[in-house]
Amino acid sequence: MRIIDQRRLPTDFVERDLASQAEVCDAIRTLAVRGAPAIGICGAMGLTVAVAALTERERDEFLELVRRAGEEIASTRPTAVNLGWAIRRVVDRARATAGTSDVILGAMRDEATAILEEDRAMCQRIGETGAPLLADGARVLTHCNAGALATAGIGTALAPIYVAAGAGRRITVLATETRPLLQGSRLTAWELTRAGIPVTVITDGAAASRMRAGEVDMCLVGADRVVANGDVANKVGTYALAVLARHHGIPFYVAMPSSTIDASLSSGDEIEIEERDAREVSTLGDRRVTAEHAAVGNAAFDITPAGLVTAFITDRGLVHPPYHFVRPDA
Amino acid sequence: MRIIDQRRLPTDFVERDLASQAEVCDAIRTLAVRGAPAIGICGAMGLTVAVAALTERERDEFLELVRRAGEEIASTRPTAVNLGWAIRRVVDRARATAGTSDVILGAMRDEATAILEEDRAMCQRIGETGAPLLADGARVLTHCNAGALATAGIGTALAPIYVAAGAGRRITVLATETRPLLQGSRLTAWELTRAGIPVTVITDGAAASRMRAGEVDMCLVGADRVVANGDVANKVGTYALAVLARHHGIPFYVAMPSSTIDASLSSGDEIEIEERDAREVSTLGDRRVTAEHAAVGNAAFDITPAGLVTAFITDRGLVHPPYHFVRPDA
Repeated sequence: MRIIDQRRLPTDFVERDLASQAEVCDAIRTLAVRGAPAIGICGAMGLTVAVAALTERERDEFLELVRRAGEEIASTRPTAVNLGWAIRRVVDRARATAGTSDVILGAMRDEATAILEEDRAMCQRIGETGAPLLADGARVLTHCNAGALATAGIGTALAPIYVAAGAGRRITVLATETRPLLQGSRLTAWELTRAGIPVTVITDGAAASRMRAGEVDMCLVGADRVVANGDVANKVGTYALAVLARHHGIPFYVAMPSSTIDASLSSGDEIEIEERDAREVSTLGDRRVTAEHAAVGNAAFDITPAGLVTAFITDRGLVHPPYHFVRPDA
Repeated sequence: MRIIDQRRLPTDFVERDLASQAEVCDAIRTLAVRGAPAIGICGAMGLTVAVAALTERERDEFLELVRRAGEEIASTRPTAVNLGWAIRRVVDRARATAGTSDVILGAMRDEATAILEEDRAMCQRIGETGAPLLADGARVLTHCNAGALATAGIGTALAPIYVAAGAGRRITVLATETRPLLQGSRLTAWELTRAGIPVTVITDGAAASRMRAGEVDMCLVGADRVVANGDVANKVGTYALAVLARHHGIPFYVAMPSSTIDASLSSGDEIEIEERDAREVSTLGDRRVTAEHAAVGNAAFDITPAGLVTAFITDRGLVHPPYHFVRPDA
């Protein structure tokens, strides 16, 4: 299993092979792999890597080891729903497969590959759903990275941009840098410039004055989890942009594959928000930037209430309010 | 003339002597000295340093050199009104002083000292004006650094906090880190923790969810320029916080000394916004973080329309809307 180590971008393009459960968990936890769909695929593939050497075990013991490895990998990032969802699919497929541990492992690999291929197809459909919203000359503001690097395909929030640009429309993008880990500056700007799409990076705090100056036609972001009522968990700072978009009369779209839906929760208040290491905020490289003795908050996500979302751009079409999401497989 | 080099905080407390016009301009331009009132004082003091060795010149020639040095120093930071205002005061005082160049220089030093002492007194009065707004237990969100480091006294936005805490009230502060230069994380957290006031640093994008969670009782920020209609130029990101505060029904206060008023402009649209070096955004230390070929925007300030300001906390009392500011010396 080979990944792009996203921590090294944009300066270095480094691919890494993940050969054990520990390496898979570490890659997800440290954000070498990030982006809700990509994490799901990495978790599913990673689960097959984690148990690949255990097929000499009896079927029941093997299934128990699969279950445990799945739980451990799923616990690395609690907010993105895709991770638990993808691992559950692989574990369920394992349980439903008759035969020896070897046969089960083969079925698990098929399931993980199916998840990857479905993700690629979902990205394409999200792009086709959203592209008609982007007229020639459209100026799109996005946050964090919900692009190709976050998926197996052309991304979620960036997919409509790629499809519209591919159709010859001139699209320009404002990318918020996205503190603390700068996914907008490092990753979104990297993949858009590689695709020849003009992008300007601004600080998160500068989005408001760009909106006020009339320089933003729409906001387009991804999602880590969307619950039954349409509340959205996404990278911290998303909620601020949604409020600002509403204030300025700018449409605010959330792009997501069906796998991002978690209909088991009725509202965003029930979503667990991952609190990450304070050093992501308090240090730059080796240098401490936050004064000693100051507390540091580093919630990685925030909740955008459904009422601020103009529409969802999904692989099953545009979804307008009122929102009542059900399980994707329902 | 001695300054604290604020670029070195919070890790190193370094004082520097400024001995020439070039050193003064460099200190202001590179933000070794920053904060609107402190820049004004540094400019006024710096002007006396710049011409101190020129008193053997004839009076008329000396006055011309004073004027030119003043213009050059004033041009280092175009947005903060205090810089031009303080330099104008010293230049006007020079012109109005009879006698030799030596006598004129003495008068200029008196004027610069007066500006410093007035600033200290204004900070104290701002603190006393604002402190009654802060009940025991108040949770204040501030942006950038409008504290003691930005003034000759106890600051502007932080002054009410210091006065309230000095009166025994328990005040806690949420400080946005303030990208790109992290004045909140580096400076506000530094001076508040030194004063024993609990502070939590968050990313700029995290302020919105803190407000939604009911963790912010008021926003309290400084200003670099306030024009006749009450529009405010302040550190980029201020406008976003003002919109978010309005959305959440949280009062939004701007603290400022009278020297921050620029009644020569009728609205914020006329304020020149300083665009700073893109590398402040695109690099961390020596490391490039923004993808190559991406454009970078780095407007240092934004404009908050007067309608979003609950009240101004000034050295002349609380000022409520509708706002009609006049020249401070009028």
